Amino acid sequence: MFLTEPQVYELLERYGIETPRHRTFKRGEEVEWHLFPAVVKVVSPKIVHKSSVGGVVFVEGPKELQRAVEELFRKFPDAQQVIVEEKLSGIEAFLGVKRDPSFLHLIAVGLGGVLVELLKDPVFIPLSASRSETEKKIAETKLYRLVKGYRNFKGNLDLLLELIEKLKKLLKENPEIAEMDLNPLFITENRVVPADGRAVTEPPPERPKFRPLPKELFRPRTVAVIGASTNPKKVGYALVRNLEQFQGKVFPVNPKHEKVLDFKCYPSILAVPEPVDCALVAIPAKGVPEVIRECGKKGVKLAVVISAGFGETGEEGRKLQEELKRAAAESGIRVLGPNTLGFIVPGLKLNASFSTVTPPPGETSFLSQSGALITAVIDKAAEERFGFSEIISLGNQADIEITETLELATRDPSTKVVLSYVEGLKLGAELLNFLNRKPCIFIKAGRSESGRRAAASHTGSLAGNYKLFKDAVETKGGIVVDSLEEAFDTANLLSTYGGIRGRRLLVITNAGGPGTLAADYAEAEGLKLADISAAVEELSRGLPPNWSRINPIDLIGDATSDRYRFAFKTVEKLNTWDAALVIVTPQSMTDVPEIAYEIVKFKERSRRAVVACLMGGHSVKGGREILKNNRVPNYPDPYRAVKSIRRGVWNGLSSSEARQEKA
Amino acid sequence: MFLTEPQVYELLERYGIETPRHRTFKRGEEVEWHLFPAVVKVVSPKIVHKSSVGGVVFVEGPKELQRAVEELFRKFPDAQQVIVEEKLSGIEAFLGVKRDPSFLHLIAVGLGGVLVELLKDPVFIPLSASRSETEKKIAETKLYRLVKGYRNFKGNLDLLLELIEKLKKLLKENPEIAEMDLNPLFITENRVVPADGRAVTEPPPERPKFRPLPKELFRPRTVAVIGASTNPKKVGYALVRNLEQFQGKVFPVNPKHEKVLDFKCYPSILAVPEPVDCALVAIPAKGVPEVIRECGKKGVKLAVVISAGFGETGEEGRKLQEELKRAAAESGIRVLGPNTLGFIVPGLKLNASFSTVTPPPGETSFLSQSGALITAVIDKAAEERFGFSEIISLGNQADIEITETLELATRDPSTKVVLSYVEGLKLGAELLNFLNRKPCIFIKAGRSESGRRAAASHTGSLAGNYKLFKDAVETKGGIVVDSLEEAFDTANLLSTYGGIRGRRLLVITNAGGPGTLAADYAEAEGLKLADISAAVEELSRGLPPNWSRINPIDLIGDATSDRYRFAFKTVEKLNTWDAALVIVTPQSMTDVPEIAYEIVKFKERSRRAVVACLMGGHSVKGGREILKNNRVPNYPDPYRAVKSIRRGVWNGLSSSEARQEKA
Repeated sequence: MFLTEPQVYELLERYGIETPRHRTFKRGEEVEWHLFPAVVKVVSPKIVHKSSVGGVVFVEGPKELQRAVEELFRKFPDAQQVIVEEKLSGIEAFLGVKRDPSFLHLIAVGLGGVLVELLKDPVFIPLSASRSETEKKIAETKLYRLVKGYRNFKGNLDLLLELIEKLKKLLKENPEIAEMDLNPLFITENRVVPADGRAVTEPPPERPKFRPLPKELFRPRTVAVIGASTNPKKVGYALVRNLEQFQGKVFPVNPKHEKVLDFKCYPSILAVPEPVDCALVAIPAKGVPEVIRECGKKGVKLAVVISAGFGETGEEGRKLQEELKRAAAESGIRVLGPNTLGFIVPGLKLNASFSTVTPPPGETSFLSQSGALITAVIDKAAEERFGFSEIISLGNQADIEITETLELATRDPSTKVVLSYVEGLKLGAELLNFLNRKPCIFIKAGRSESGRRAAASHTGSLAGNYKLFKDAVETKGGIVVDSLEEAFDTANLLSTYGGIRGRRLLVITNAGGPGTLAADYAEAEGLKLADISAAVEELSRGLPPNWSRINPIDLIGDATSDRYRFAFKTVEKLNTWDAALVIVTPQSMTDVPEIAYEIVKFKERSRRAVVACLMGGHSVKGGREILKNNRVPNYPDPYRAVKSIRRGVWNGLSSSEARQEKA
Repeated sequence: MFLTEPQVYELLERYGIETPRHRTFKRGEEVEWHLFPAVVKVVSPKIVHKSSVGGVVFVEGPKELQRAVEELFRKFPDAQQVIVEEKLSGIEAFLGVKRDPSFLHLIAVGLGGVLVELLKDPVFIPLSASRSETEKKIAETKLYRLVKGYRNFKGNLDLLLELIEKLKKLLKENPEIAEMDLNPLFITENRVVPADGRAVTEPPPERPKFRPLPKELFRPRTVAVIGASTNPKKVGYALVRNLEQFQGKVFPVNPKHEKVLDFKCYPSILAVPEPVDCALVAIPAKGVPEVIRECGKKGVKLAVVISAGFGETGEEGRKLQEELKRAAAESGIRVLGPNTLGFIVPGLKLNASFSTVTPPPGETSFLSQSGALITAVIDKAAEERFGFSEIISLGNQADIEITETLELATRDPSTKVVLSYVEGLKLGAELLNFLNRKPCIFIKAGRSESGRRAAASHTGSLAGNYKLFKDAVETKGGIVVDSLEEAFDTANLLSTYGGIRGRRLLVITNAGGPGTLAADYAEAEGLKLADISAAVEELSRGLPPNWSRINPIDLIGDATSDRYRFAFKTVEKLNTWDAALVIVTPQSMTDVPEIAYEIVKFKERSRRAVVACLMGGHSVKGGREILKNNRVPNYPDPYRAVKSIRRGVWNGLSSSEARQEKA
C-alpha cells in the first residue's frame, strides 16, 4: 500500500518527528495559507514521483498559490487533495528506509540533492545500532562534514540523531513499512525537517526463526556415519577413515556391511547400542528425510547431511529440501547441510567431513558457505600451521543458518575469533546482535551483479546486497575484509591479541623505505603514527646520530639485535602507542634470528600488540619460524601488516567507533 | 607577480580561449553596460580572493550596476579598476594549473563548486598528455558524467577538451606561470567559459637536465673497486668478493694491498693497465671527489659511489655532494649514488653491489631509491626464483636520476618490465615521455605527511605529492601500485605476457565460492566478465548438467584434468576474452599436477594471458612448481590474481585508455 505525503507526515508526527508546516486542501475547498514562499503539491496514491509529472509548484504569494492549486486539480483530475507547505532550506540530505529480507529495516543517511546517486554518500544503519553507533557510522559520510560545519554550511547533529532515533522507534513499531523516503531532508542549525515523504507498506517477509544452538552441538562424544562404505572411492568411506583419529566413539551404519575399516557396522541408526550425538548422512538424497526421522527417534542431536541433490539442483531438489526441513522440525533434530562438507574440531581430533586433511588446533572458528573454499583453506592452513577451534561447512542451510553457528561460536570458550565466508544470509538482523561479543571477520561474496549470478547458481541462496551487508555489519562492530588472504592475516592477529585497543601505531625499522611505506599505509588506513617525542632524548643516547628522531623509528641499516633491544626497552615505557610494527630487512649486519627473539621478548613484556614484518626470503626464514613458534604475527609486506593492524582495532565497539577512538 | 582578472582574460584570448563578455572601467569612467544579469568585481593585484572581501557584486540592471561600481571604488580606495561581465551559468567545474618542480605544469579539472575540496574530484593532467589521454583521464571524474549528460545536466565535452588543448599551448609558451585558477568554469552545451581568472608568475624552477645514458653503461666489461679491502668486515672486501663470479675483468684498487682475494690489486685507478668501464668507489666520503677526477682521467664511464656521508647527513655532506657533482660534470663521467648499494646484472653474473645474494636472471629491471628495499627484494626473489635483467640502487642521485635509468631500461632489449621504487623524482616531466615504450610499474613512497617526513630524513630527497605523481604517471600509461607484493605480482605477469590487450576476463574454476569472489573483484577493478554464450552449448556437451552455464565457468568440485582440458579446448576458440584466470581448489578428485600441465598447454595454445590461482598448501605445491617452470603466473588468492590482471592491462596506451578499451 502506498502512503501519501500527508499520511506519512501524520505517521511521523505520532513519533514526535518534525514535519514542515503544512495543510491539505480538498478539491473545491477554499485555500487559506499565509506563509510564503510555499510549495504546493498534488496528493494522490497513484502519483509516486510528483515532481517528474509536474505535480510540485513553488509559489511566492496567495494569488500565485490560488492559481497553482486550480492548475493542479485541473491537471490531475483523479486527485482529490493538494498539500501546501512552507518552503524549507538548509543542507540537503537524503533520508530513506529500506526493508531488507535479511537485515530488516535499514536507514540510509547521507548527502542528498541531484547528485545523490553520483556521490553515493549515504550509509545504511540497522535498527539495532545505538545512537553512538549511528553517529560513528554517519561520521563516514560527507554529510557529516557539512553538518559539523564546512564552508558556509552548518547543521545540527543532535537534532539529526534524535530524528533517526525516533525513526527507529517508528519502524520497530510499524514492521509493515517496506520502504520510506523522507527526501530531501533539510538540515539547519535549528531544524531537521523532511520536505517530502512517501512510503510503501507490505506484509513483513517470512523469515526463518533464529534458534540458539545447544552448547555442545558441534562437540559430540559419539558419531555415526549413515551410508558408511568399504569402497575407498566413496564418500561414506572417506568419512569413516577421517574419524579414525577421533577421540570419541564411531558407529558406521550400512545394512550391507558388518565392518567398515576397523569399526563394527550397524544395519540402521536405531540398531546402534549406545546414544549417538551426531550422525553424518551420506546416502542418496531421496532417502535422507526418512533417515532424519530415524535419527530423531534415536535421539541424535545433530545430523550432518553430506549428500547433495537438494536445493542446489532445481525444482525437485528444492521440494526434497522442504521435506528434509519438515523431517528435522518434526523430529526436533538440528540439521547441518544438506550439501555440506561436514565439520572439523581439531582439538578433539574430530574430522567429521570428507576433507582429507585436518588442520592444527587453534582459536579461530571458520564458518563457510562454500565447501570448496574450506578444502583450500585447510590445505593452506596445514602448510602454514594456522590453527582452528572448529571449521563448519554450512551447505544449503536447510535448517542451521550461519548466524546460528556464529552465535554459538561467540559462546565457545575455545574460540577467540570467528571468520565467516558468506554468500547469502537469512538472519542478518539477528547476526548484528552478536558482533560485540568477539571479533567477527567476514568475507562476503556476491557483491557484483556477475558475482551474484555465480552465487545464485552455486548454493541456491541469493547473495544479498554487499553495501547493505558491509554497512550493517561494520556499524555493529563486525570486520569486513576483501580477500581470503586478508581474512587470515587479520584472524592471525586477532587470535593472538583478541583486539587492538586503539589506533596509535609505532613503527620500528632498519630500513627507511619500508618505514616510509608503512607510514603511508597507516595514514591511508586511518591509523595514527604514535607520538614518540617523550622518548627521543633517551633513544638518541643509544642510537647512531643519523637515526630518524621521529616515528617511524629508523634504526639505520647496520642495526643489530642489540640496537633493536635498546629501542624496544625504551619505547616500552611509552603509553602513547597501541600497536608496534617491527620491520626487519636482511642487510649485512642484520642478525635476523636474534632480532626475532628480541621481538618475542618485546611482545611479552609490552603486553600490547606487536607485529613483525620480516622482509626477504632465505635470510629471514629462521626468524619467521621463531616468530611463528612464539605467536608473533608476521607479514611479508608492510602493506599486509598495517592492513591487518587496522582491521584488528577492535574493542567490542563498532569498527567506526574504534576508528575514532583516540583520534 | 600576480595577474589580475582582465590580464588573465587577455592572455587567454591570445590563445583563442573564450572569456565571459566583459569590460573594465577605470575609476571615474562612465559605466556603459547593457547585458544583465551581470557581475561587477574589483580589480587589484593586491586582492587575491575578491569574493571573501566583498569585492564581487551581482547586479540585475543599470542602476544597480552604477551603485555597485561606486560602492566598490569607495570600499577599495587603492583599486583603480572594476570589471563588469556577463553572469554565466551551467555545470560548475574547477579548472586550475599547478607548476610542480618535477612534473612542471599540470592542469587540474573536475567538479567545482563549494564542495570542491570535500569531493576531491579534480584530476591532474600533464602537458604531455595527448587530447585522447586527457579525455581518458577526465573520464575518471564525476564532472565527466555530468558533461556527458546526467539528470538535467549536460555539457560539451569537445569544447572542454579544446579549451584544455589551448591551455596546454598557453602554458608551454608561458613557462613563467606558476599557478593559475580559472575557477569556476561554467560548462553548457554551447559554451565552456571561466567566470574568473587569476594567475601568479614566477621564474621557472631550476632543474637538473635530463641526459640520456649510454647504452652499455650498466653492462661493463671491466670493473675496478676503489677502496678494495682484505678485511672481510669491510664493504671494500664484500664488493670484490661479489665480483668473483663476474664474467668480465676485476681490478681492486688500494695502495695498501698487493692482492685482494685472488685479484691483483693496484695502487690507483690510473695504475690499472687496461681500460676500466666501471669503478666502484668505497672510500671515505671526503676523498671521493678527487677519485672521481682520477676516474675521469682514466676514461671510466660509470663511477658507482657506495660511500655514504653525503647529502643524507646534513650541511657538510650536502657541500661534499655538490663537489662530487662538479667533479663528475668536469670529468664527463656519470656517477651512480653516492650512498648506493650498487647495481646487479644477473645475466652477466655481475654483482656490483654489497648485497650478498644475487638473484636469478630475468626480464624485470628494478630501480630503487631505497637500498635496504633491494636487499629484501633480492632475498625474496632468490627464494621464489623471480628473475631480474638488472637491479640499480639510485642512492642520493647526485648525478644519475631514476628517470635516466628508466629511460635506459626502456631501450634495453633484455628488459620487458621496469619496476621503480620512487621516493622523490626530479625529472617527472621527462619521465612521462617514456612510459609508452614498455610497461613501467611504480611503487611510490611518501604519500602521507608522516610518510614524507620519513622520506625526507631518509634519502635527503623530498618526496613529491602522491596524487600528482599518480595522476600524471597513469595518464601517460604508467602503472602505479600500492605495495611491493602487488608490484611483483604485476611484474610477474607483465614479464610473461608483456601486457594484456583488453579487459575481458574469463574465469574457470572447480569451486563456486572462489569463482564468485573472482567475479566480484573483476567488477570492482573495472574488468569485464567475458561473454561465453557462443560456447555454452558445446561446453554443456562435455560438462556435468549442473555446471554454471555462465562465466565464471564452474566445472564443479569433482572436475579432473580431463574436464579442465575439455573446457580449455572449447573456450580457446572464443575471441571474446583477453585473459583467463584458472582457479583450482584441491578436492578429493582433483589431480592438481595434471591440471597444472593442462593449464600450461592452454597458455601455449591460446596465445593470450592465462593466469592460475592454485589455492591451498601441500596439495598444490607440485602444481605450483609446474606452473613456475613453465612461466604461468600463479597467485595464492583470487584477489591478487585479478588485481594483477587488471594492472597488467597495458598496450602502450595510458592505463585509463586501457581501462576503457573494449568497454
